[in-house]
Amino acid sequence: MASLMRGWVTGFFTYETTKSVVVKSWSVGIINRVVQLLIITYFVGWVFIHEKAYQVTDTGVESSVMTKVKGFGKYNDLVMDVADYIYPPQGTDVFCIMTRIIITENQFRGRCPEARKDFQCSTDADCHKHLGSVRANGIITGACIDISESKGRCEIEAWCPAENDKVKNTPMANVENFTIFIKNSIRFPLFNVTRGNFLSMSEKQIKTCTYHPELNPFCPIFRVGDVLSYTNHTVDGLAEQGGEIGINIEWKCNLDRNIENCVPRYSFTRMDATFTSSPSKGYNFRFAKYFKTENGTEFRTLHKAYAIRFDVMVTGNAGKFSTIPTLINLVAAFTSIGLGTVLCDIILLNFLKGADQYKAKKFEEVSDAQIEASITPSPDSQSSLKPGE
Amino acid sequence: MASLMRGWVTGFFTYETTKSVVVKSWSVGIINRVVQLLIITYFVGWVFIHEKAYQVTDTGVESSVMTKVKGFGKYNDLVMDVADYIYPPQGTDVFCIMTRIIITENQFRGRCPEARKDFQCSTDADCHKHLGSVRANGIITGACIDISESKGRCEIEAWCPAENDKVKNTPMANVENFTIFIKNSIRFPLFNVTRGNFLSMSEKQIKTCTYHPELNPFCPIFRVGDVLSYTNHTVDGLAEQGGEIGINIEWKCNLDRNIENCVPRYSFTRMDATFTSSPSKGYNFRFAKYFKTENGTEFRTLHKAYAIRFDVMVTGNAGKFSTIPTLINLVAAFTSIGLGTVLCDIILLNFLKGADQYKAKKFEEVSDAQIEASITPSPDSQSSLKPGE
Amino acid sequence: MASLMRGWVTGFFTYETTKSVVVKSWSVGIINRVVQLLIITYFVGWVFIHEKAYQVTDTGVESSVMTKVKGFGKYNDLVMDVADYIYPPQGTDVFCIMTRIIITENQFRGRCPEARKDFQCSTDADCHKHLGSVRANGIITGACIDISESKGRCEIEAWCPAENDKVKNTPMANVENFTIFIKNSIRFPLFNVTRGNFLSMSEKQIKTCTYHPELNPFCPIFRVGDVLSYTNHTVDGLAEQGGEIGINIEWKCNLDRNIENCVPRYSFTRMDATFTSSPSKGYNFRFAKYFKTENGTEFRTLHKAYAIRFDVMVTGNAGKFSTIPTLINLVAAFTSIGLGTVLCDIILLNFLKGADQYKAKKFEEVSDAQIEASITPSPDSQSSLKPGE
Repeated sequence: MASLMRGWVTGFFTYETTKSVVVKSWSVGIINRVVQLLIITYFVGWVFIHEKAYQVTDTGVESSVMTKVKGFGKYNDLVMDVADYIYPPQGTDVFCIMTRIIITENQFRGRCPEARKDFQCSTDADCHKHLGSVRANGIITGACIDISESKGRCEIEAWCPAENDKVKNTPMANVENFTIFIKNSIRFPLFNVTRGNFLSMSEKQIKTCTYHPELNPFCPIFRVGDVLSYTNHTVDGLAEQGGEIGINIEWKCNLDRNIENCVPRYSFTRMDATFTSSPSKGYNFRFAKYFKTENGTEFRTLHKAYAIRFDVMVTGNAGKFSTIPTLINLVAAFTSIGLGTVLCDIILLNFLKGADQYKAKKFEEVSDAQIEASITPSPDSQSSLKPGE
Repeated sequence: MASLMRGWVTGFFTYETTKSVVVKSWSVGIINRVVQLLIITYFVGWVFIHEKAYQVTDTGVESSVMTKVKGFGKYNDLVMDVADYIYPPQGTDVFCIMTRIIITENQFRGRCPEARKDFQCSTDADCHKHLGSVRANGIITGACIDISESKGRCEIEAWCPAENDKVKNTPMANVENFTIFIKNSIRFPLFNVTRGNFLSMSEKQIKTCTYHPELNPFCPIFRVGDVLSYTNHTVDGLAEQGGEIGINIEWKCNLDRNIENCVPRYSFTRMDATFTSSPSKGYNFRFAKYFKTENGTEFRTLHKAYAIRFDVMVTGNAGKFSTIPTLINLVAAFTSIGLGTVLCDIILLNFLKGADQYKAKKFEEVSDAQIEASITPSPDSQSSLKPGE
Repeated sequence: MASLMRGWVTGFFTYETTKSVVVKSWSVGIINRVVQLLIITYFVGWVFIHEKAYQVTDTGVESSVMTKVKGFGKYNDLVMDVADYIYPPQGTDVFCIMTRIIITENQFRGRCPEARKDFQCSTDADCHKHLGSVRANGIITGACIDISESKGRCEIEAWCPAENDKVKNTPMANVENFTIFIKNSIRFPLFNVTRGNFLSMSEKQIKTCTYHPELNPFCPIFRVGDVLSYTNHTVDGLAEQGGEIGINIEWKCNLDRNIENCVPRYSFTRMDATFTSSPSKGYNFRFAKYFKTENGTEFRTLHKAYAIRFDVMVTGNAGKFSTIPTLINLVAAFTSIGLGTVLCDIILLNFLKGADQYKAKKFEEVSDAQIEASITPSPDSQSSLKPGE
């Protein structure tokens, strides 16, 4: 019993390694080493240095963006300040600078002729076909009202007078000189690392600088005219019809190096670029300010605002050395070095002079027939099959 | 010295390959090839064709969403247009259509009886226990006020009169016919590819179409009634208490094929589905419009708005051929083909007739004892240990 | 022809396995098994149990957040309710509680002296240098106006009177007792699993509870004072200058277990922590309420609001057993067990007593010279090269 146990233990603690053929041939030898060199280069250069496979990466960056626009515009000779032209006011990552506003003042609920030319009519029948239309300024009643001697317009139940948005007016002046101040704080929850986009700039620097990609790449104050020019657009081109500009803040941090190297990179894109030549280009929205007359009747001022929308988008990832990915990739690297043999074997056994000899050396054949013969006890075959005995 | 160097170089440029046993047995041979076939099938079918392992993928899609709702509702016989029922107005990816509004007009700051039945009282003591309650319409003062002969209500310091939100009123009519127009532009930063959800539709198509999953799957105009029916809900069901609807836009692009095949897929979900039977179902919020009397006193109209909130969510990924992932996966595939041997070895060495013979052929044993003996120079053991000489 | 075909088929269905050397040595045997044990432990413990490599994971959680704040504040002796101090009103994942408001009432468009001390002047020349400044309350006209006997201020074209934001006033009282109610519904699109943060709490529980990390970790109602204390801040510290608080909801779901174990985990961070000692600390924004006089002139009340911004962020991932990742990782595990040989070979062939004997046993040499010789037909060398025949 004890000896059986001992036999099993001895059997368990054996070590099995492959029997190898060492080929002392210059041609295959060189190919083998070159292939191995390529594999090592790939792992060192790409996997370890470029892809930083020895790091764990945190891509789930938590970000907080606060924005503040400053500047004064002139629109129809009226001064416009931030409270007038920014919407929404709370300074989040998405905000609009209204550049052109079509204002329809003193609208009361009632019935009046539609303002749009599509709703011209001469009889009520002309208006019946528009019933239920969502393109008018109100609910089409089906009646046709004379608005001058010769022309009629369909009657609508709506806030009257109806808005006429075909007016051409000049966009607000001075928008290009407005400044956008961005306060961005990020956190990598995996490493509990927090960074802000002020970096270590002094109070004076922050208050007086203006962002420039080369001269001042970390200044958090952006001139609107500059931002638009980085996207190859101008204020004039966007102010008329509106548009959307993306401000990307990219944090790529290698936490194995000094944290001071973990800095933001700003880039700018026109986000509605695909629609610039489409039937529905630009960006606009309607909102109303509500008032009450002395006797309590509600009336409103309707605004159709063409605006430049800014969208501050923050992306980021941080990497830091970690043993587990390092080990896994080291093992992968060592294992892969052996892969060169696949290629070399093909060359050795097929294309080299003396390939057949190499084949004979590498392969030992054993066939069913031989095994069959060996089971039938014949002293001759037995001995030839167990060379290791 | 030179010959030593030369010896080292010769030693370096050698090629080591495993010595193999070729088993000419039908059973193991077939198993071997079948296993290899399965592995190849897995790599070709799953890894390469299904998972597109030959591509690099960009999942960090940048997206811009602009929305515009059109349509006219009737609420308490008053016409409601977009500026009245949409909040927030700026047409972003999240917007609410207010379907039922409880309006409390002409509120002034002061003291008045609470409107809610929970705050009925007969003595001041009844109200003292509510001190600090956040469920009233204002700060409980602790006093009990008679509001009719028999009943009393706790006094509050608040905007008076207090809101009574138990009123039952009919939601806004015609919401199902409202249309939502979605302008979505995406960019894959890795490949710098930009796409818009208008695709190559003509101006006329975009202005007149309505989305339908089969007939018109790319139309960017959605009827509210349709969107709700795709989520198996109706306007009637949501308009009363409010709710949240998700509109998903999914872009899955294979950039190795024609860019025209990179199209959006729309889908719709009720996002607050888990709460439909919970104590706090639906969606509502309060806001106020502020007015001033002639003498400058501020007063307000309080709105409690039940709304359907729409949330346009954009997801996307794009893949494009790249040499590095292709090479890595090809190497992985070739390496894995060799893995069949693990299974076949188990069969060959254990379950096949003549397993012992195969074992003898595959394994050469060498034990400590033998090595021990061979170190002590004895011509006999020496020769038996170096068969390759 | 048939025999040729048959020969090819026989040749195809062969099985090639490596010839191995079994070393019966205790030292290497034990090292070998220990290395294998380490590899198995790594796969079982880390890859399978910790990293759950047998699951497919859905990280693209779809989330819907609805928030509602309750509570009454007192500001300048005026009662403030939700409609007064919350912005934006629609109860989304980002909302602000305004804690200190600098109100400038009855502003009309016109010209008046700037309120800020930086714009003191004695002559017009002093004001010319400020032309185009964005730090004033309006457009600097270049004139200097006397405001008292001795002092002058630069004239601005703006909404007058200009705001004086250097006023020190006490923040709104009672903010710490406000409650935030969060309704969060999530969906894992891959598994079509939906969960809400009410879990299976009863109506009464939800209406009366208050969140506590240990006692009540699933209650969806949060006291503002508590939330701030979890981030090691106080209402007093934030109410003066404003700030941003992140409320993280984390869903980590193992769908192989009971769905009831799929619960949210709340955590809280001060998101603008990096800026607390910076020149531009806190959070504030400006907005205006617009009014009209009897004769139709627009005037406004400007608010500069210092606010605590709350940002509810939802992250989540769900895993579920799937055959494909399980198979891939099992194969990876089995393959890796063989990797121990690399280490053992190094020990066996270099550091063990009798290393040379092992080398001789493991390696069979074949050189160019031998092959060369064998090609030249000499019966002697021929036979020595084909031992398997």
